[in-house]
Amino acid sequence: MSNPLRIGMVGYGFMGAAHSQAWRTVHRVFDLPRGVDMAVLCGRDAAQLEPAARKFGWRETETDWRALVARKDIDVIDVVTPGDSHAEIAIAALAAGKHVLCEKPLANTVAEAEAMTAAAARAAREGVRAMCGFSYRRVPAVAHLRALIAAGRIGAVRHVRAVYLQDWIVDPEFPLVWRLQKERAGSGSLGDIGAHILDMTQHVTGERITGVAGLTETFVRERPLPVASTGLSASAETKSQARGRVTVDDAAVVLGRLSGGGLCTFEATRFATGRKNALRIEVNGSLGSLAFDLERFNELEFHAGARAGTESGFTRILVTEPEHPYIAAWWPPGHIIGYEHVFTHQARDFVHAIAEGTEPSPSFAEALGVQLVLEAVERSASRNAAWMDVPAV
Amino acid sequence: MSNPLRIGMVGYGFMGAAHSQAWRTVHRVFDLPRGVDMAVLCGRDAAQLEPAARKFGWRETETDWRALVARKDIDVIDVVTPGDSHAEIAIAALAAGKHVLCEKPLANTVAEAEAMTAAAARAAREGVRAMCGFSYRRVPAVAHLRALIAAGRIGAVRHVRAVYLQDWIVDPEFPLVWRLQKERAGSGSLGDIGAHILDMTQHVTGERITGVAGLTETFVRERPLPVASTGLSASAETKSQARGRVTVDDAAVVLGRLSGGGLCTFEATRFATGRKNALRIEVNGSLGSLAFDLERFNELEFHAGARAGTESGFTRILVTEPEHPYIAAWWPPGHIIGYEHVFTHQARDFVHAIAEGTEPSPSFAEALGVQLVLEAVERSASRNAAWMDVPAV
Amino acid sequence: MSNPLRIGMVGYGFMGAAHSQAWRTVHRVFDLPRGVDMAVLCGRDAAQLEPAARKFGWRETETDWRALVARKDIDVIDVVTPGDSHAEIAIAALAAGKHVLCEKPLANTVAEAEAMTAAAARAAREGVRAMCGFSYRRVPAVAHLRALIAAGRIGAVRHVRAVYLQDWIVDPEFPLVWRLQKERAGSGSLGDIGAHILDMTQHVTGERITGVAGLTETFVRERPLPVASTGLSASAETKSQARGRVTVDDAAVVLGRLSGGGLCTFEATRFATGRKNALRIEVNGSLGSLAFDLERFNELEFHAGARAGTESGFTRILVTEPEHPYIAAWWPPGHIIGYEHVFTHQARDFVHAIAEGTEPSPSFAEALGVQLVLEAVERSASRNAAWMDVPAV
Amino acid sequence: MSNPLRIGMVGYGFMGAAHSQAWRTVHRVFDLPRGVDMAVLCGRDAAQLEPAARKFGWRETETDWRALVARKDIDVIDVVTPGDSHAEIAIAALAAGKHVLCEKPLANTVAEAEAMTAAAARAAREGVRAMCGFSYRRVPAVAHLRALIAAGRIGAVRHVRAVYLQDWIVDPEFPLVWRLQKERAGSGSLGDIGAHILDMTQHVTGERITGVAGLTETFVRERPLPVASTGLSASAETKSQARGRVTVDDAAVVLGRLSGGGLCTFEATRFATGRKNALRIEVNGSLGSLAFDLERFNELEFHAGARAGTESGFTRILVTEPEHPYIAAWWPPGHIIGYEHVFTHQARDFVHAIAEGTEPSPSFAEALGVQLVLEAVERSASRNAAWMDVPAV
Repeated sequence: MSNPLRIGMVGYGFMGAAHSQAWRTVHRVFDLPRGVDMAVLCGRDAAQLEPAARKFGWRETETDWRALVARKDIDVIDVVTPGDSHAEIAIAALAAGKHVLCEKPLANTVAEAEAMTAAAARAAREGVRAMCGFSYRRVPAVAHLRALIAAGRIGAVRHVRAVYLQDWIVDPEFPLVWRLQKERAGSGSLGDIGAHILDMTQHVTGERITGVAGLTETFVRERPLPVASTGLSASAETKSQARGRVTVDDAAVVLGRLSGGGLCTFEATRFATGRKNALRIEVNGSLGSLAFDLERFNELEFHAGARAGTESGFTRILVTEPEHPYIAAWWPPGHIIGYEHVFTHQARDFVHAIAEGTEPSPSFAEALGVQLVLEAVERSASRNAAWMDVPAV
Repeated sequence: MSNPLRIGMVGYGFMGAAHSQAWRTVHRVFDLPRGVDMAVLCGRDAAQLEPAARKFGWRETETDWRALVARKDIDVIDVVTPGDSHAEIAIAALAAGKHVLCEKPLANTVAEAEAMTAAAARAAREGVRAMCGFSYRRVPAVAHLRALIAAGRIGAVRHVRAVYLQDWIVDPEFPLVWRLQKERAGSGSLGDIGAHILDMTQHVTGERITGVAGLTETFVRERPLPVASTGLSASAETKSQARGRVTVDDAAVVLGRLSGGGLCTFEATRFATGRKNALRIEVNGSLGSLAFDLERFNELEFHAGARAGTESGFTRILVTEPEHPYIAAWWPPGHIIGYEHVFTHQARDFVHAIAEGTEPSPSFAEALGVQLVLEAVERSASRNAAWMDVPAV
Repeated sequence: MSNPLRIGMVGYGFMGAAHSQAWRTVHRVFDLPRGVDMAVLCGRDAAQLEPAARKFGWRETETDWRALVARKDIDVIDVVTPGDSHAEIAIAALAAGKHVLCEKPLANTVAEAEAMTAAAARAAREGVRAMCGFSYRRVPAVAHLRALIAAGRIGAVRHVRAVYLQDWIVDPEFPLVWRLQKERAGSGSLGDIGAHILDMTQHVTGERITGVAGLTETFVRERPLPVASTGLSASAETKSQARGRVTVDDAAVVLGRLSGGGLCTFEATRFATGRKNALRIEVNGSLGSLAFDLERFNELEFHAGARAGTESGFTRILVTEPEHPYIAAWWPPGHIIGYEHVFTHQARDFVHAIAEGTEPSPSFAEALGVQLVLEAVERSASRNAAWMDVPAV
Repeated sequence: MSNPLRIGMVGYGFMGAAHSQAWRTVHRVFDLPRGVDMAVLCGRDAAQLEPAARKFGWRETETDWRALVARKDIDVIDVVTPGDSHAEIAIAALAAGKHVLCEKPLANTVAEAEAMTAAAARAAREGVRAMCGFSYRRVPAVAHLRALIAAGRIGAVRHVRAVYLQDWIVDPEFPLVWRLQKERAGSGSLGDIGAHILDMTQHVTGERITGVAGLTETFVRERPLPVASTGLSASAETKSQARGRVTVDDAAVVLGRLSGGGLCTFEATRFATGRKNALRIEVNGSLGSLAFDLERFNELEFHAGARAGTESGFTRILVTEPEHPYIAAWWPPGHIIGYEHVFTHQARDFVHAIAEGTEPSPSFAEALGVQLVLEAVERSASRNAAWMDVPAV
């Protein structure tokens, strides 16, 4: 395919593996307006970088992201580093005229997110696109859930209850990886997984979270220091005898209000023993309800209509029909897709936005909207759960 | 059976039917230390009372609860009226030396609940027993859940998330029944169904809720006035043209802290379209997790152990084995029991407590503990979700 | 209520307990055209009979069923003995002008079932009613399933797959109770639980099973002799050292054809480790499908329509709405009922049939229809699964 | 990677897309002993072939499989054509010294499968490998299920019940695609999907199916002729006015015996309305049970132990832990994988077998074992379900 988008990706950990799978696959499955070229993988440690690039299928490597950004032969910068470097890389890349896909959360602070949003706005005037990787929006079941709400199928939203439950640090001897350090990760469960359910709530309802009250907790306050970090958050890294302080939250619980008047509850935790990756969301409306569980990725529960009847109930929709979002490109009905596919869908939509000159979503401004909620939760939690209004972007 | 307990029951609505079924059944299924005699049904409207007594199987009737309480041939007063009359009846009955079983919530205010608790304490010194009808404690799966926590099977409690979801007033034309009037019901979803999950949380964890932040909402603020009320909350009563104000909450969402340091979320709503009677509770501990759904009454989900492994997961226990609480008296494994059975179990345990001279549970003091949480939620909700400490009883 | 039906029940084991609960409850919950009077409990062993009668709530006892049948003050004989005595008792009772409710399977042989059917036909001419206790027809979800098929909601039946899975004799040391002895029980899993799924298939489809091929197996061929039998099949009775031969099947698997051309598979086993009482049936039609699981007693899965679409799937109907069969007499939506309720529904319908002079269902002729299928399966199994046509009644 | 295996694939329909995804991905995710090179895609129609090769990522094309087989620069022939050409291509490729991966069912007749098995045996003596694509063996949950049985965790197998339910031809106007034509497909649901559950049963139990009785049915006997076939079985192809005869079965039901004495039931149908790809298998053993549903791809239900207890039940294992088969190469716990991954696992294992000189599994001999069962079912079905012994390979 002529004129492919030449991708440079910064980072090669867990997210780097997932994005690589997407860039390898997207043009093999979807019909794209432009091809993709996995040009350059970038990371600081050449000894780890080279085998990663070979394994994932990147043509070249760079050990300095500034050099990457400066290259003329790169069209897209894909940022999959920890949150503390998002702002610097993304802003520089946009300034250099590169389209930017940046992992979530957009940044570690509202100030950074605001600067990034401003940079994205400037770049947009030049036709340069910026998108944030709230990839779960592109689970077919989630996209379908949103479409049903947008079509009025459940009426006015009364309730959202959303949880993101994991358990990978329940063991107090699990080491102090970067995701447990405030200066790298910004926050703990709140920003890592809480951000997903906050974004999903605003995305699927089409409403804003206008205020919150929240509590956070760190159940295990000291952990063994890791000897070396591979960049994969949940791996069992070698541990040293020394211990360090956990500086982020293990869990967060939040009440919220939607702009349409609905009530929300949110919970993000890494201490829900036995729950591995349980993002669950239920939306109750005046005319129906919808429910989704990420561990049952291909299913959507839909209660159509508010009136009880002899045939009423929650319908388990297997979201694998060709008419469902993204599915026609994949397999026949009933053939399951999984986690990595959301990154392929994200890549597809980003390529379309670039080629067609449209604004991709989630924009940096939308991601800033999530950051503002995260900050309001942190402020509330630091003030004994006092109510905090969330400003609009 | 000699010397049966002679029961006088005040009220004959939905709860009256459920308690009647229990009193008819308890000695036919369980081996009791004393028999039971369904002596007197009491209600104000003789025209409705007589057929109810015949239908439910009561020997006699009274139209004045004071007359009932004064009778020498009554041992137990069972109070199944709306909450606004609980205190007066229960306190008088206890003063008259009658054992009292009182429906939940114990009262409409903390002041009433305190007076009742004091009356129960006085009565206890005379060997007179008082118990509050948080009947869901006696779902076999819930009793088993509690036993597993008490045995240390899930370690320290980190999280409780509990919801009670109904949808019977989603239709704005559903009439303004007594459960939607503050002066009769005390509160709306909060006291009616929220009370159940607050009590269950304190009961199964063995911990206190020490503080809360809460929001409440009334989505439909005016409703048609009912022409006549049958006492059954969810029935489709005849409606008039006139409308009145709904004076209770339709929904409540709450954050809480447990005395052991765990975090809680609670939600009680009558606006969860499609959810009929979905009391759901999950408890995550440092060593395991437990989950229960009242719509899957006979099942308990148990994750034993915190360590992932190739055989780990949530086990669906069918709580129908003879070793499970209350089950040996019923049917073989796999044979389902249901809602009404909890009232039979409650009757069984109350008869044992009376005959054996032990303190029944939930005592009025325990029920006051729930009332204090309810009041803290209401105060918090009236002050923009400000944090409220909950005093101990 | 004037002129109540005076019941005499023969047998007081597991089924005796279930029927007693029904007779105690039916007029307290349903509005009946005639009352019921628990007059006489009959059993051979007076030492066991007397406490059973007191416990279950029967007024009198008889130790000779012939004496019971001869009494003028009895209107109904309820037969809950093992299958080897059904024919003799039921035929005598009908001849004496008593209405008869007889537990399933109707008899241990086709010859007996034919004699009973003839007796029922003679009695019907005198206004005397006979009914067989395939009680699961009266699970509300099953009754609803049947109604949906009868209304054409799933079109022409293509497939029935029905299993009844239990595991109470997986342990080779479980004793040789009467249900494992051919001369008492007639057959093993086939007649005990297989009969239920065969009857249910014919009942819900409104079609006949016209031919079968079957295999049976006895996995454990010798078992310890019980020291004493209480009549409860699944209890852990005291065992002796001596062993005896198991003379019935442990498991049966069957292929079948329906009169409308559909294909069926059936499986009845007591060796499905972990399955306690898993009667499951799924019916696929040209326009939809229905599925039911007895361990999820209050739920029915319904796929409405044959065309896939973005909102299609199996709807989990909670069969607890007042419009669902039998439910209006019980509790509000979402409040679970259970196993014992089917006996109450059976009693209700039998009382109506007697009072209104209509033919109850399942009639003895319908139950003979099941017996003919059972016999065809046994003949097939004894001839290496050779195909056997099933004669019509 | 030096010395990569050069793959030539014959066919580019549904299976061609799935295998292409596997060949693109396998070395990017797994550490392989040899690399893979997607060298040549082969098909008869150049106009369709060229865009398929570009889309799927193949370097070159051939329109004559004989030319492909003759090429010196090809190491592996991957056969993903309809069953009528498997034998000719695979035998020629093996004779030419190419390793062969052949889609299932191995062939359309036992005679072809025997010839292929003989060819594979000859080739094996030269170090040339042959493998049949029963890909569902490589669902991690299925591989885990097998490992648990092999480790004795459920004891002696008593029951296997396996169904494969689809509904893509319920509509009588669905066109007469090649999968409904005996001369192309060999058989209908029996060979297409029934083959999967027969193979899975023999694979996971480690036992042979020694005899069967079966029925087949064609519910819709005439269908519109398709105007053109794309090779994708379930697509809505353009239809003509003309109609043709369906020459394969729509559904098959089967009883079977295992070599260890257990009983089996099997059902394969394309008429289970609402079931999209519901391969379900349950194995009950003397010490435990296991159950799997392909529509819940990442889950395995395990009942450990035969003794009921207060903590017993079926455990839902989320088969996404690094210790589970194949998972360590993919994503963290709880991150779902899907259908296409089984082809990647298959490619991985085939590369290992080639590089390490071991016999891949399923071998052609194992696949012949399935073919013998299929033939026995067809013979049984043609003789009114008469019992047929299944010869050993």
